[in-house]
Amino acid sequence: MKQPHWLTPDEQEAWRSFIRLQDKLIGRLARGLQTESKLSAADYTVLVNLTDAPAGRLRFLDLAKTVEWEKSRMSHHIARMTKRGLVTREECADDGRGAFVVITQTGRDAITTAAPLHVRAVRRLFIDPLTPEELITFAQLSKRLLEQLENGSSPEDGFTPRTQKDRDIDC
Amino acid sequence: MKQPHWLTPDEQEAWRSFIRLQDKLIGRLARGLQTESKLSAADYTVLVNLTDAPAGRLRFLDLAKTVEWEKSRMSHHIARMTKRGLVTREECADDGRGAFVVITQTGRDAITTAAPLHVRAVRRLFIDPLTPEELITFAQLSKRLLEQLENGSSPEDGFTPRTQKDRDIDC
Repeated sequence: MKQPHWLTPDEQEAWRSFIRLQDKLIGRLARGLQTESKLSAADYTVLVNLTDAPAGRLRFLDLAKTVEWEKSRMSHHIARMTKRGLVTREECADDGRGAFVVITQTGRDAITTAAPLHVRAVRRLFIDPLTPEELITFAQLSKRLLEQLENGSSPEDGFTPRTQKDRDIDC
Repeated sequence: MKQPHWLTPDEQEAWRSFIRLQDKLIGRLARGLQTESKLSAADYTVLVNLTDAPAGRLRFLDLAKTVEWEKSRMSHHIARMTKRGLVTREECADDGRGAFVVITQTGRDAITTAAPLHVRAVRRLFIDPLTPEELITFAQLSKRLLEQLENGSSPEDGFTPRTQKDRDIDC
């Protein structure tokens, strides 16, 4: 293998800052959620996505794809959330395309309590330290990186892209 | 409680871009590491920190503090890495301040193989899509956010800060 193209000091500083930032920020927010709302970051993500969906329900596979989890991880997580009464599964026998995950009233209550506290933490730790212009710049650069991630081939993602036609068929 | 100060559309876009970016980027890199080098992201982090330390050894608690893991998480992880021969524990009986974690030759071989592949992925997904100026801007904004995180009080961090004097006492 040819000599690796190691990072320059500037590149290393950018990369380490980003890794450290995401690690600390995500960790801090996750601990806050758990302490204040008894929800894990994963619970919160699932509940937010269900709340945003019509009638609070999403196909299991669509939910997994949206949050980019492997099916097995989503399956285990939904089982745990079902036990805690935050979501239910709604079978959909007639098209063979699997179950819906549906938010329960308990789930809605949990996210209603958690969201304002979580948003306050996001504001304090992510929004307030930057000027509005800096925030827009940060968003632009993040989106540029996201495009590269989303357009690049990623055979290891473990998801087969579904067509719009697939998505339009619903129970 | 007073009405929560919800995020504006610009703020929400910045926040969602960042969350999506870190989630996808960290996920993609972790899958690459696992596939190419049989190391988890956590293994990689531990091995990099040990490689950077004199004689490839760090106090267990210093390692935990550096990577900001709870002691219990670090303890479980080091136990698993010890079983796989990547690190060993070196007891340090005379000062009662606990063991060192030391990288083994197997650990060094693993990180030597993994690092070039990992750096190549970091370059492709994080460095190359931005111009050098954009990368510097991104680093500056990340560091601003980090300062806020590191200076803000964080009782939930679970670590008691240690003094420099503590750090200077070594086996």
